[in-house]
Amino acid sequence: MTSSLNTFFEPAGVAIIGASDKPDKLSHGILRNMLEYGYQGGVYPVNPKSSEILGKTCYPDISVVPDPLDLAVIILPAPAIPGVLEACGKRGVKTVTVISGGFKEIGEEGKALEGQILEIIHKYGMRMIGPNCVGSFNLNNGMNTTFIKGKPATGGIGFISQSGAVCGGIVDHVLNNGIGFSHFLSLGNEADVNETDMMEYLVEDDKTSVIAIYAEGIQDGQRFIQSARKVTRRKPVLILKAGRSDEGARAVSSHTGSLAGSHTAYQAAFQQSGVIEVKNSTDLLNVAMALDWMPLPKGSRAAIVTNAGGPAALASDSLAENGIQLAHFSQATQAKLREKLSPAAQVANPVDMLGGATETEYGYALDCVLADENVDMALGVLVPQALVDTVKVAQAMLDAARKSGKPVLVCIMGSVSVHAAQQLLHDNHLPMVDYPEKSGVVFGALKQYADYLNSPPNDEETLSIKKDTAKVQALLAGSDLKNWGEHVTRPLLDAYGVSLIPGKLARDFQESLDAAKELGYPVVMKVASQDVLHKSDYGAIAVNIRDDGELENAYNRILENVHEHDVNARIEGVLLEKMAAKGQEVIIGMKRDPGFGPLMMFGMGGIFVELFKDVAFRVAPMTTADARAMLKQTKAVKLLSGWRGGIQYDTDAIIENILRLSQLAVDFPQIQEIEINPLLVLPKGQGALALDCRMILE
Amino acid sequence: MTSSLNTFFEPAGVAIIGASDKPDKLSHGILRNMLEYGYQGGVYPVNPKSSEILGKTCYPDISVVPDPLDLAVIILPAPAIPGVLEACGKRGVKTVTVISGGFKEIGEEGKALEGQILEIIHKYGMRMIGPNCVGSFNLNNGMNTTFIKGKPATGGIGFISQSGAVCGGIVDHVLNNGIGFSHFLSLGNEADVNETDMMEYLVEDDKTSVIAIYAEGIQDGQRFIQSARKVTRRKPVLILKAGRSDEGARAVSSHTGSLAGSHTAYQAAFQQSGVIEVKNSTDLLNVAMALDWMPLPKGSRAAIVTNAGGPAALASDSLAENGIQLAHFSQATQAKLREKLSPAAQVANPVDMLGGATETEYGYALDCVLADENVDMALGVLVPQALVDTVKVAQAMLDAARKSGKPVLVCIMGSVSVHAAQQLLHDNHLPMVDYPEKSGVVFGALKQYADYLNSPPNDEETLSIKKDTAKVQALLAGSDLKNWGEHVTRPLLDAYGVSLIPGKLARDFQESLDAAKELGYPVVMKVASQDVLHKSDYGAIAVNIRDDGELENAYNRILENVHEHDVNARIEGVLLEKMAAKGQEVIIGMKRDPGFGPLMMFGMGGIFVELFKDVAFRVAPMTTADARAMLKQTKAVKLLSGWRGGIQYDTDAIIENILRLSQLAVDFPQIQEIEINPLLVLPKGQGALALDCRMILE
Repeated sequence: MTSSLNTFFEPAGVAIIGASDKPDKLSHGILRNMLEYGYQGGVYPVNPKSSEILGKTCYPDISVVPDPLDLAVIILPAPAIPGVLEACGKRGVKTVTVISGGFKEIGEEGKALEGQILEIIHKYGMRMIGPNCVGSFNLNNGMNTTFIKGKPATGGIGFISQSGAVCGGIVDHVLNNGIGFSHFLSLGNEADVNETDMMEYLVEDDKTSVIAIYAEGIQDGQRFIQSARKVTRRKPVLILKAGRSDEGARAVSSHTGSLAGSHTAYQAAFQQSGVIEVKNSTDLLNVAMALDWMPLPKGSRAAIVTNAGGPAALASDSLAENGIQLAHFSQATQAKLREKLSPAAQVANPVDMLGGATETEYGYALDCVLADENVDMALGVLVPQALVDTVKVAQAMLDAARKSGKPVLVCIMGSVSVHAAQQLLHDNHLPMVDYPEKSGVVFGALKQYADYLNSPPNDEETLSIKKDTAKVQALLAGSDLKNWGEHVTRPLLDAYGVSLIPGKLARDFQESLDAAKELGYPVVMKVASQDVLHKSDYGAIAVNIRDDGELENAYNRILENVHEHDVNARIEGVLLEKMAAKGQEVIIGMKRDPGFGPLMMFGMGGIFVELFKDVAFRVAPMTTADARAMLKQTKAVKLLSGWRGGIQYDTDAIIENILRLSQLAVDFPQIQEIEINPLLVLPKGQGALALDCRMILE
Repeated sequence: MTSSLNTFFEPAGVAIIGASDKPDKLSHGILRNMLEYGYQGGVYPVNPKSSEILGKTCYPDISVVPDPLDLAVIILPAPAIPGVLEACGKRGVKTVTVISGGFKEIGEEGKALEGQILEIIHKYGMRMIGPNCVGSFNLNNGMNTTFIKGKPATGGIGFISQSGAVCGGIVDHVLNNGIGFSHFLSLGNEADVNETDMMEYLVEDDKTSVIAIYAEGIQDGQRFIQSARKVTRRKPVLILKAGRSDEGARAVSSHTGSLAGSHTAYQAAFQQSGVIEVKNSTDLLNVAMALDWMPLPKGSRAAIVTNAGGPAALASDSLAENGIQLAHFSQATQAKLREKLSPAAQVANPVDMLGGATETEYGYALDCVLADENVDMALGVLVPQALVDTVKVAQAMLDAARKSGKPVLVCIMGSVSVHAAQQLLHDNHLPMVDYPEKSGVVFGALKQYADYLNSPPNDEETLSIKKDTAKVQALLAGSDLKNWGEHVTRPLLDAYGVSLIPGKLARDFQESLDAAKELGYPVVMKVASQDVLHKSDYGAIAVNIRDDGELENAYNRILENVHEHDVNARIEGVLLEKMAAKGQEVIIGMKRDPGFGPLMMFGMGGIFVELFKDVAFRVAPMTTADARAMLKQTKAVKLLSGWRGGIQYDTDAIIENILRLSQLAVDFPQIQEIEINPLLVLPKGQGALALDCRMILE
C-alpha cells in the first residue's frame, strides 16, 4: 500500500508539537496515548519549555527532532500554526494532523487562516488531517494521536467521523462491548484530507472489512460518488448523515460554517453508489458489527428461535419493516423440531421453545432451521431465565452459527445479567443485540448489501446521443436571459436530442398560418415572450385550434390578454405546436445542488408531485441503471406500466430523455435549473414528447 | 381505592401454593422475592411435602392457612389447578395469580382447561391474573410475586405487560439506570384480568403517574377504547403493540393462540382514545421516564445547548422527524449568550459552546435560553471531555431545569464514563438519554400529550339522525342474501339518513320510463341483480341517458349484456338514478374487525386508495371529532379544501355520512362490511350523494 495517507497511520516517527508536561492538558493526553497503546516507532514531544515529558526527551523545535520522522501532530493556538507548518515542510515531514480549532468553524477570519495553512501544505506536498479534529487511532499498531481515553476491541470496522465529539462518544459506547475497530479517524474541518480520501485508504487496508462514516457534509460530491461506486463493490460503506431534515441541516451549517447540499442530493448519491444509509448511531454500530462478522444472506427469509413469544413478535415486526420475511419451514424441518422439543413448543416460525429451553434445545432448533433450504438467516432470541445458563445458550448459538455458514444474529434481552454472554459472542465474532427490535435494521442492511453485490456493476456509460455541444454553446452565448421560456429552451433541448412536440415560432399572424399549415391542424398556440413566464395565468395559451378561423381568433385573443396583463411585455411572436395525442404526463427536471452538482428529478405531474411528493432524484452523470431505479422508486410509475390491465407506456423514452437532460446538465454548468413539464409519455414504442419546458441560468 | 383488584397489590396475606424448598425452582424464587423486598403482610408457603421453607411455616393445604388471606399465587402443573382454585374459593381467597402455563397457549386442550378455571373463578367471585404469567411487583410495598431477580428504582411508571419475558427483559434493562416504576404487571393469557382492568386500576393509584403497556392483543377492543378515553385525560398511557406488520401479527397469533385484530384497527383505537403508540422498547422506556418526570411543553419549539456540533445536528434531525422545531432565539437572548460564552461559541440555536465548556457555561446558557419566551423546551447535550467534570455539568443542567419549570432533557453521550452523571440526574428526576437521536421521540411524545390534553374532550355524542331501526331490522330479516348489491342496500342506508342520489327500482321497461320521467333526464341505468356484483364488468351500467329512445336502447343492451355473461342471472329489474352533478368522489366504508368491531374507513377513490394507500380508519362508535380527525389524516383531503385556489367541497357532509354509517354498523352487528363507493361530494353547502353502495352480511 503506497497511499500518500499511509504515514498518518504507520509513520516511522511522530512529533507531538505543543506537547505539554501538565497532565490536565489535551496535548499531554495525546502524548500519553501515543506511548500507551503499543506504537513501536519514535515519539518526539516538541516544546521549547520542557526538556523531558513522560520519560521522553522533549525537543525545542521540529528541526532538531531525529530521523526518521513522518508525521507531526500539532496542538498550538491557531495563529502559531502557519509558522510551525512551514518548519514541518522544511524538515521533510510528510503528513500533519492539526488538532487545534480556530479556523473555518469560527467565521471569516478563521477561514482565511485555514486557506493560508492549506497553501503551506500544498507548497511542501504534505497531507493534512484537520484542523479542528481529535486525531486518529490505528488500533492494529497502537498509533493513537487522539486524547480519547480507552481502547475498544480490535476488529474490522474503519470508522470515519467528521465530528471529533461523535468519534469520542462512539468510543465510550463501545469500550466494553467487544465491537471491533481497525481505525477511528476524526477529520474535523477536512481542509485537505476528507472522507473520500479516507474511504479510498481504508478499502486498501487489509485489516478493515467495513467502512462506517459519520458525516455532516461531503466536500466534493461528484468525486465521492465516483469513488464510492468502486469502493462499495469491494467493501460495504455505511453512512450516518446528520442534517437530513431542514432543522438538522440548519444545525450542521451553523456548526461547520459550510453550505451543505440538500439531503435529497445526499440520498440520491448514496442510492446510486451503493452506500448504505442508517438513521442513528445505534444502527450504525450494529450494522457495522454485522457486516464485519456475518456472512451475507442468499435471500430474505429469516427464522426465529426463541424462548419467549413477545420478543419474537417484536423482532418479526422489525424484520418486516426492513424487508425481511419470516421463512416458511418445510414439513421435514417441523417434524424434526417436534421430535426433540417440548410438546408445548411452537414449531412453526418463530420457533418458541418456551421459558425452560436449555442450550441443548437452542442448539438443536437452530441446527434444524438453519439446515432448511427455505431459511436464509436466523435470529436466536433468549430472555434470560433463572434456571437457564445464558452463557451456555450463547455458546450453543455460536456453534450452530459456525456449522451452518448462514448469518445468525443473537438477541439476549437485558443488560445487567447478560454481559458474560455478550463477551463470549463478541470475542468469537457472533453479533448480539440487546433488544429484538434492533434485529430488522441489521438483517435488512445485510440483505441490501447482498442484493447490491448481486446487481450488475453500475458502470458509467457514454450515452450515444446526437449531442450538438457547439450549438448549445452558441445558444447560451447568444443570450443574456436568466429565465428561458419554452420557445428559447426548445432549440437547446433539440440539440441534445430531447424529443419535442413538433412546433414552430411565428413572428406574426401570417407566419402562424404557415406554421399551422406545416404542422397540420389541430394545433396549440402559446405566446413567445421573455416577460410571460406563467403563460396560462396570462391567458396566453389556446389549445385544440382546428382551422384558420380559430387560429386568427386565438392569435388576437392571446395578444390582447398579454397586453392587458402587462402593457410592456416584449412579445417575440407565438409558438405553434401540434396538438398532442393522449398519453400520461410526467415531469423531468434538473436543479443544481451546491454540493453534488446536477440533481435530476422524475415524477408524475400535478398532485402526485405536489400532494404526495412522489418524486425520485439522482445525481448526474447518470447511467441507464440509475434512471431505471429512479423511475422504479416512485409509486406513480405503476400507472405507466399496465396499471389494472391498462396501457403500457413508453418508459424507455422517459429514461432516454432523462439521460439526455442529465448529459446537458453535466456539459453546461451554467444551467442552474431545467424542467420539462409535462413530458407526454405515449404508449410503448411510440416515445415521449416534451410539451413545455423552461430553464434558469446562473 | 376499593377496586376488586386491590388485593393483588396490597393483600393482607399471601399464600404461595406450590412453593418448593429447592432453590432452583421458580416457586422457590417467588417465595424468596415475597420475603426479600419489604412486603409487610403474612406470607404462607403451601406444599404438603415441606414443613418449613426459607424460615416460614409451610402449610399442607390452603384451608389451614391462617387469616387474613387475600391472595393466592399458584405454581403447580396445569391439571392440578382447577382443584386448587376450588379450595381457594372455599377458603375465601379474593384474588389469585396463576403463574403456570399449559392453557390457551398450547392449543385446544389447554383452552378447555382455561375455560374451566375461569368458571371456578366466576363461581366464587374471585379475580385472577394469568394463567401463564410471571406475576406482579408493587415496588411501593415490596409485594413481589414474580421470580425476576433485582429491584429497579421506585417511581411513577406503572408497567403492564402481556408477556412475562418482555417484563423480565425490561426489568433487567432498568435495574441500574434509575428509571423509576410503581408496578410491574405481567398478565399472561388474560383469562380474567386484562390490560383495561389494570389501566383502570393504575389510573386510581396515587403512586403511578404514567401507564406503559406492552401488548400483543387487546381482549375487548370497545371497552379498551371507552376506558382509555377517560384514563388518558388523567394520566398518559403509552403502548408498544407487537404485531404491527403482517409478519409480526403472524408471530403474535402463533404465540398467543388468539386472533388479533388488524393493526389498522389498533392504530385507529389508539388515535381516537389518546393513547400514545411507540415503536420499540427503548422508546417505551425513555418516553415513560419523560412523562413521569418532565412538565409538559407549552409549544413545540426546542433549544439545544451543546459542547459539540455533531450530536446537536443528530438531535435536530431527530426533533424535526418528531414534529419539534428549533426555536428562534430573541436578539436579547443571543446578546446575553454572547456576553459570557467563549467568543468562538455559536449563539444561534443550537448553542454550541465548544469542547471546553464548563458547568458554569452550561448553567448560564441553559438559563438564558429557557428564559426566552420563544423556547418551550431544552435539550442539554454533553460529550464528555477530558478536562470537563461531567457530574458538575449534570448538576448545572439540573439546577437550570428546576429554575425554569420548562421540560429539559439531558443527553450525555457515552456509557462507560457517564454513569455517575446519569445517577445524579435520575435520582433527581431529570431524564437523560445516551444518544442525541433519542431526544426527538421523547419531546415529540410530550408535545403529543400536551396537545391532546389541550384538545376539547372527545366525549361520546348521540348523533341526532333520522334513524329508522325498525325498518333496517325488517329489511335484514326479510332477506337471506350474503352479498347485497346497490338496489337492496339503498333502502337500508336511507333508513339511517345516508344521502343517496335520487333513484328508483324499475321492474320492467314501462316502470323504467315512469321512473325516468319522475327523476328527470339525464339518468343512469344499472342492472338490479343479486348475481351481478361487478356491474361494469358485465356492461350493466349506462350513463347520461338523455331521452326515452336512449332509455329503451340502454334497457335492452343491459339485459342482453347480463344474459350474455350469465344466462342464469336472476334479474329483478333496473335501477334508475339521476345523473349526478360534478363533484369529488370519495369512499366511505366499514369492515368489522375481530378485535375492535366496526372499523370505519375514509379515503379518496381510485388510485389514492389503491396506489397511495391514502386512507384513514376509526373504530365505531365515533364522535364528530373522530370523523374530522379521520379526514384530516389523509393527504388527498386537501383536494377537497380549496386545493390551489379551487373549489371548497362539503366535507361536513362526508362527516355526517360517516357518522350515520358508523351508527348503522354499531346497531347491526350482523353487517360485516359496507361500502359507499363513490360518495360524490358537492361544493360546500350542497351535500354529498352516495352513487353506489354494497354490503356483506355474516
